[in-house]
Amino acid sequence: MAPAAITPVSPPSPTLDNTSRLTKAGTITTLEKTISNGATVAELDASRLTITPNLNPKPVPAPNSPEVWSQSYTTDHMLTARWTEKHGWEAPEIRPYGPFSIMPTASVLHYATECFEGMKAYRGDDGKARLFRPDRNAKRFLQSATRIALPGFAPEEFLKLLKKFVGVEAPKWIAEKGSFIYIRPTMIATAAALGVQRPKEALMYIMMVMFPTLDDPSSRPPSVPTPGAPLSNGVTESKPVPASKGMRLCASRHDMIRAWPGGFGSAKVGANYGPSLVAQGEARARGYDQILWLFGEECYVTEAGGSNFFILWKNKQTGRKEMVTAPLGDGVILEGVTRASVLDLVRSGKLGDVDVTERKFTMHEVLEAHNEGRIIEAFGAGTAFFIAPVQDIHFRGTDLVLPLGQDDSKDGKKGDEFAMTIKGSLKDIMYGRWQHEWGCVIEEQTEMQYE
Amino acid sequence: MAPAAITPVSPPSPTLDNTSRLTKAGTITTLEKTISNGATVAELDASRLTITPNLNPKPVPAPNSPEVWSQSYTTDHMLTARWTEKHGWEAPEIRPYGPFSIMPTASVLHYATECFEGMKAYRGDDGKARLFRPDRNAKRFLQSATRIALPGFAPEEFLKLLKKFVGVEAPKWIAEKGSFIYIRPTMIATAAALGVQRPKEALMYIMMVMFPTLDDPSSRPPSVPTPGAPLSNGVTESKPVPASKGMRLCASRHDMIRAWPGGFGSAKVGANYGPSLVAQGEARARGYDQILWLFGEECYVTEAGGSNFFILWKNKQTGRKEMVTAPLGDGVILEGVTRASVLDLVRSGKLGDVDVTERKFTMHEVLEAHNEGRIIEAFGAGTAFFIAPVQDIHFRGTDLVLPLGQDDSKDGKKGDEFAMTIKGSLKDIMYGRWQHEWGCVIEEQTEMQYE
Repeated sequence: MAPAAITPVSPPSPTLDNTSRLTKAGTITTLEKTISNGATVAELDASRLTITPNLNPKPVPAPNSPEVWSQSYTTDHMLTARWTEKHGWEAPEIRPYGPFSIMPTASVLHYATECFEGMKAYRGDDGKARLFRPDRNAKRFLQSATRIALPGFAPEEFLKLLKKFVGVEAPKWIAEKGSFIYIRPTMIATAAALGVQRPKEALMYIMMVMFPTLDDPSSRPPSVPTPGAPLSNGVTESKPVPASKGMRLCASRHDMIRAWPGGFGSAKVGANYGPSLVAQGEARARGYDQILWLFGEECYVTEAGGSNFFILWKNKQTGRKEMVTAPLGDGVILEGVTRASVLDLVRSGKLGDVDVTERKFTMHEVLEAHNEGRIIEAFGAGTAFFIAPVQDIHFRGTDLVLPLGQDDSKDGKKGDEFAMTIKGSLKDIMYGRWQHEWGCVIEEQTEMQYE
Repeated sequence: MAPAAITPVSPPSPTLDNTSRLTKAGTITTLEKTISNGATVAELDASRLTITPNLNPKPVPAPNSPEVWSQSYTTDHMLTARWTEKHGWEAPEIRPYGPFSIMPTASVLHYATECFEGMKAYRGDDGKARLFRPDRNAKRFLQSATRIALPGFAPEEFLKLLKKFVGVEAPKWIAEKGSFIYIRPTMIATAAALGVQRPKEALMYIMMVMFPTLDDPSSRPPSVPTPGAPLSNGVTESKPVPASKGMRLCASRHDMIRAWPGGFGSAKVGANYGPSLVAQGEARARGYDQILWLFGEECYVTEAGGSNFFILWKNKQTGRKEMVTAPLGDGVILEGVTRASVLDLVRSGKLGDVDVTERKFTMHEVLEAHNEGRIIEAFGAGTAFFIAPVQDIHFRGTDLVLPLGQDDSKDGKKGDEFAMTIKGSLKDIMYGRWQHEWGCVIEEQTEMQYE
């Protein structure tokens, strides 16, 4: 028999909080489903969650400290749930954060059977902890998992687990008003067998990582390389870099394509990231922050690194203000939660009279609008970089300097008012200044049982 | 500081065989290179290999036993070499096979920063152990690693390590003449940090796994599901399956593509596999062995599952026998070692008067040739499935039954003579019956120092 594919390194700890539902007769009921051979397997069931507290808790580092910039400083706990083809989902656990033991033959190490989500928890001005539209992350997590043959689950059960986990960690890790933390739900295939086949074992886990405010370049500490610094791989800078006012994008080459219709660009799977790192590393070495991914001979604009890309311009025909972004549908771009929120917010009319268009548009249209002075601003929208105004775009030998990157002394306009207004509105929701259904208040465990 | 990303679970064992080169003065010399900041980092250096024997060796299971079919039964040792951005390659080790300890934040678990190779070692009729064209695997391993920003290395150093490792394991694990074992070199990014960036730490490892003879359906034990058996995911069979004479292929749907120009289909990276599992699972549930991956509206034929695809037909214009396979160049198909060997062998003329063509060809051409009775046979070629004759292809509602799948009583022709001749020739090289430069004899450690 193959050894168990993945196990905690430390022995299981005693359960302090078994919330499994008891029937009146005292037997534990679990969610199950019947599969084709007549057997039943357990569904993911948040009510079976157990909590094992970490008896060696860590200190909380200062915001934007080097520990935070390392993007590896995790909280005291993680949530894990194991799945097997034979028995379905085992009882989820919150337990001390620590390494996994994994066999060298595990599927995830060979076949990229892995997917994840990215989201944040915020400490509001009113003292409450919030998630932002976590139901959308839950649904997308399910879509990503099933795209690569990882097991399905009820999104609402995942959401219950997520809230419970945030409720355990929030009191300590986002104690200060205005603070936030990054949350990384992940699923990996763990069965120790080399056959290229549907995963037979998987592990869902959720962890939290201290994260810098990537949308504010001034928060970057001296020890962290700024965009434009030479990388240690021998690629040195090709030109001097001006002081950064916003995100600097480098359009992808025609021979380096991120995603394709019928592929998996819309799923948050590992396979979209590893193959993008060479292009991204080259762009960073040349002083750019992210790749602007183009598609096809037409040079359709798709995504900006890990963000969706928006442009605000005067429409060529109508002369009206129009916000344009690439459409969903052909599966090439990620259905970002921030993307959807920007679209909803601007369509609501609260930010003024702006037309909103989801359509395919090309880099040549952007160039034309630039040459005709019609571009007002451009920005990326995503969880990690939040709303990030764009300063310039390098496209096949041409540096397209957007209003934000130009001399701003002319009329005092900075070229990021619209993006900043959107950002302000979303922040108001995240931090509870604007009571809104997108802000999901978390019930916190103000006292852990072990304290 | 982040904890070390990946460590052996067991403490380091004493070194029994330190083959590091000593200079006359007694100091150890290592291969190094200078990087852009003037620092030197160590290159991968086979002469620094150390060996720690496994003091709890396992029994060797019988060929095609259930243990072997599990594709998870490894040998006693693995070879590992750690790399860091700061110091380069550490000394490689052969050590007892066992689990890794890996942080939940490790890059490989999120961003598919992983690549691998697949090859076999054979025990020849002359008693010698051989690899088959391992220099090609070494070069491709390097290409795959650098495609996803993993560290580079000198292929010849990797090759030395590979041979040394096979030399340690071969005496026990391929003791019987005619036996073989599967070898899986792997590289993964291990740094514990969530930033989407070039890997800062990596682990190269090589392991060996007992493998069934996948090219011989009769070797399949009763406990292993045969193609056509319903899967446990609820997908049941759509039609009765005839006794299998060869590989059954199901052409991919237009909304599920494997790779695209400018992507990474030619690299052996994890990202090519996970996203293919859903389509493959559906095909297997319907009784097919592999997906025949098509590309574009033209339905270009690219690969057959993990194999390259070849067709032998009578050319429409010349009437001559012609072997056709998809070309390299646009990066959509894998540059298979078996593929190259089939091309070289047939081009050499040793197998008769057959034209060889590498060009784009469509499924419609295959259909036309089938309708005109011009198809002689078709086969997949790859390391895992070796030379696998194709019985039929399902393409958008049509079952295209190749000569191998048709009633063979007419003229005694079986529809796989050509493939079997190729297979026989390659086997002769692998097992030393045909002394050929492609057969790479391994110097074995006939007595391990610990025995």
